Amino acid sequence: MAKQDRAVRTRRIFLEAAAEVFNEYGYEAASISVILERAQLTRGALYFHFTSKEALAQGVLEEAVTTQGFTPQTYKVQDWIDLALLLAHRLPREPLLSASIRLSVDPKARSLFGTRWPDWIQLSLDLLVAAKERGELQPHADPATIARLFVGAWTGVHLVSSSLPQEADLVAEVTELFALVLPSITVPGVLAKLDISPHRPERLLAESSAGQVASGTP
Amino acid sequence: MAKQDRAVRTRRIFLEAAAEVFNEYGYEAASISVILERAQLTRGALYFHFTSKEALAQGVLEEAVTTQGFTPQTYKVQDWIDLALLLAHRLPREPLLSASIRLSVDPKARSLFGTRWPDWIQLSLDLLVAAKERGELQPHADPATIARLFVGAWTGVHLVSSSLPQEADLVAEVTELFALVLPSITVPGVLAKLDISPHRPERLLAESSAGQVASGTP
Repeated sequence: MAKQDRAVRTRRIFLEAAAEVFNEYGYEAASISVILERAQLTRGALYFHFTSKEALAQGVLEEAVTTQGFTPQTYKVQDWIDLALLLAHRLPREPLLSASIRLSVDPKARSLFGTRWPDWIQLSLDLLVAAKERGELQPHADPATIARLFVGAWTGVHLVSSSLPQEADLVAEVTELFALVLPSITVPGVLAKLDISPHRPERLLAESSAGQVASGTP
Repeated sequence: MAKQDRAVRTRRIFLEAAAEVFNEYGYEAASISVILERAQLTRGALYFHFTSKEALAQGVLEEAVTTQGFTPQTYKVQDWIDLALLLAHRLPREPLLSASIRLSVDPKARSLFGTRWPDWIQLSLDLLVAAKERGELQPHADPATIARLFVGAWTGVHLVSSSLPQEADLVAEVTELFALVLPSITVPGVLAKLDISPHRPERLLAESSAGQVASGTP
């Protein structure tokens, strides 16, 4: 393994260990020594990449806006849907993503590092503005309002559903949320062609990694 | 002031002081001595009502499901809307309400005390089931799904909007959220008669306190 590949891998191991520890203990109570124990690497290796717990939290948040599995579709509204469904599929499987939400809802961590919500809102806004320009949205649908509200709604649906005694599947919940809001956002001709099936994100991820193998991208 | 009134008032002062301190410091870092200082009452008075910080947090959460200002309307969907708008109006004004959300999103506090989300979901569900029985909802609208998703969406819209550099008004945000979801939930004849104006909660509260004065209720 080349020196640079090893450095990337080591950095990733520390970020994932930190994410797990933030998830279990919260930011305040998380300690560098527990993170080191989890990563099973040396303190020297850690300090090469991250000089403090703050730097680890910032590193986790930097990984939080991700479009893995995303492939542009015919409709921009479908692109917007796909981002939300992919994130819902990946969140319960990737500690880095759940840690970034945990850091965002923790007022102490939020005051130190801010959140990635503005970036998610901007990403959604760009897609919704393009959708509007292409005539996919109803005339009264305001991209800025929808982008902001949906990032909030997605986050809250995750928080509430994960706290209920019978935890609901996040992809299914987000699918239902789209079923509620899409009819008042999109024009009927586009609405009929959108796919919000709960199996969609898994299929997109499979197709996207098959495509990467075919084209030789790692 | 009668002895019982004084006890009720004292209890309330402690709950409000605790709510403020939970909001500022978080549950873990909140201390009894800071709460006492805030309440400006004696330690003996506190222990008469609350034996621990845990008991104060539980007391705060007990106050969190509130229907103040609520008056039943012609449509059950309007009742459901009114509960959400009233809470959005009161939340930024009442530390007890914001503290209950802060305790619910804090994983440590949540593991100790649970949340009041199931109670809000049940309250919404009862109204939506009644709305469905009266033919106010579309045939495909499922009260349980809508109740659960909307409590999540409401909470997340509050969290995200309160964290943005330009904090959006919560009542206006919840109004926009209703504008997105109501068209796919309610039958057109009812939809046209619903009031989701941002001024509604203030008016409802004024009418409800005027009604209480008129009927002599304190």
